[in-house]
Amino acid sequence: MTEWLSLFMEAATTIKEKTKTMFRSAQSGGMGEIGAGGDITHPIDTMAEEIVIRRLQDERIPCVLVSEEAGTRPLNGGGDDYVVLDPIDGTTNAVRHIPFYSTSIAHATGPHLSNVDAGLVMDLHNGTTFSAKKGEGARMNGVETTVSKTTEVEEAIISIELTHLGRVRNVARTLLPLMERSLKLRLLGSTALETAYVASGALDAFIDIRGLTRAVDLAAAAVIVREAGGFIVTPKGEKLDMMLTAPARTSFVASANRQLTAQIIELLKTASAET
Amino acid sequence: MTEWLSLFMEAATTIKEKTKTMFRSAQSGGMGEIGAGGDITHPIDTMAEEIVIRRLQDERIPCVLVSEEAGTRPLNGGGDDYVVLDPIDGTTNAVRHIPFYSTSIAHATGPHLSNVDAGLVMDLHNGTTFSAKKGEGARMNGVETTVSKTTEVEEAIISIELTHLGRVRNVARTLLPLMERSLKLRLLGSTALETAYVASGALDAFIDIRGLTRAVDLAAAAVIVREAGGFIVTPKGEKLDMMLTAPARTSFVASANRQLTAQIIELLKTASAET
Repeated sequence: MTEWLSLFMEAATTIKEKTKTMFRSAQSGGMGEIGAGGDITHPIDTMAEEIVIRRLQDERIPCVLVSEEAGTRPLNGGGDDYVVLDPIDGTTNAVRHIPFYSTSIAHATGPHLSNVDAGLVMDLHNGTTFSAKKGEGARMNGVETTVSKTTEVEEAIISIELTHLGRVRNVARTLLPLMERSLKLRLLGSTALETAYVASGALDAFIDIRGLTRAVDLAAAAVIVREAGGFIVTPKGEKLDMMLTAPARTSFVASANRQLTAQIIELLKTASAET
Repeated sequence: MTEWLSLFMEAATTIKEKTKTMFRSAQSGGMGEIGAGGDITHPIDTMAEEIVIRRLQDERIPCVLVSEEAGTRPLNGGGDDYVVLDPIDGTTNAVRHIPFYSTSIAHATGPHLSNVDAGLVMDLHNGTTFSAKKGEGARMNGVETTVSKTTEVEEAIISIELTHLGRVRNVARTLLPLMERSLKLRLLGSTALETAYVASGALDAFIDIRGLTRAVDLAAAAVIVREAGGFIVTPKGEKLDMMLTAPARTSFVASANRQLTAQIIELLKTASAET
């Protein structure tokens, strides 16, 4: 049986080293092309994706790869194992040398987010690694980690996504009551890493109500947050599931505990009612 | 004559090392107290401030220290040299282990921002250092650095401050046109470091229209941005100056070039007119 987390750890470590080399030789910029998920693909995304593909091919692991760049692609004959990859989550940060970008890799036993049973998110700048296996808890750098105990929005540090507001209406207005009441806000630019931060208590919540989070961003971080004791729900507070495909998009709330989740959902509702 | 930048570099390096030690021994949390600037003071802020004070005392440098924690304080008899310090800018990030916090130290020949003639901002997580001496250009890790060439808001990555919106009215509404038109938004949680990022082109602009930026946050980064070819103005596009005191607060726009600055100011005006 494949040791998915060990495999992901090795692949992510290779990506981290290669990324540093590319930055030193300054080949990371240049014109990008549109990936299967609709975003601009940079050379570093392609490089990172190839590392994972090569690894899966070398080990002759039959699986379906779902990736931001390559889309859905059977490897070694395909099968029921899904590997869900965002090779570089936070490419803009990486290209601009803002030290906050990550690799996200998950394993699923089927084509839905609810089928994910293992995930790993690695900070490619400093190597901090979040991982989880379903039923076995979440880890940060190999040590068990849990969500924060913050139950009140007034004491919470919350990351929000506000990019591409020109494409999506009423996002800022809907988030306003939450923005006004939370202790501090962040917008760091790597959904996978920010969501994983909810698992370690670095953040109390991460919220994207734009409907723009990709399955490949969320797959690994979702199992990590849930295994750390946190919640991943829709902005209406319902159970979140989605297809594991490159074009799939969703809104979601990741939050440390039931009380904080309920407060966030309530504040999002208030705003919607006023729209 | 005192080599201010060398002195600041040595002090910031010591703070960086001590911060790492404190994190390892996990003494960074605990109850804070209110500093001279009004924010909660954590043990790491006090530790970092003491390093700078001790250094100035050991070298018997007569100056007036203006610091977030200690307020305004003559050292070695005081005099016309001002040392403007934010020992830890981004304390929340530091305490939460979000890898984005900095030390900011500036020298001024008088009590106003316009008197600042040298400044240094060090990323305490990874050691990246921004510095400038008036008339001699800006440097990142010792190498000359300049602002980005981005002239259009649609292509710009812009950091905005949205924390404490409960205290300040209409901030989100005023920023909305800018939020909708910019390529990407960020909110990283260390004003000094984000402003310094405008000097290196990592960000195209940083904006705080809340009136909550402190002189101690801005003193070093302002001279760094200006020396890198960038602009620091009020949200109305006017020349920015302020007293160098712990309680002093301002709004400001840091931006890569004249064209981008003009566009930002125009978008902020549009919104205000609609309020």
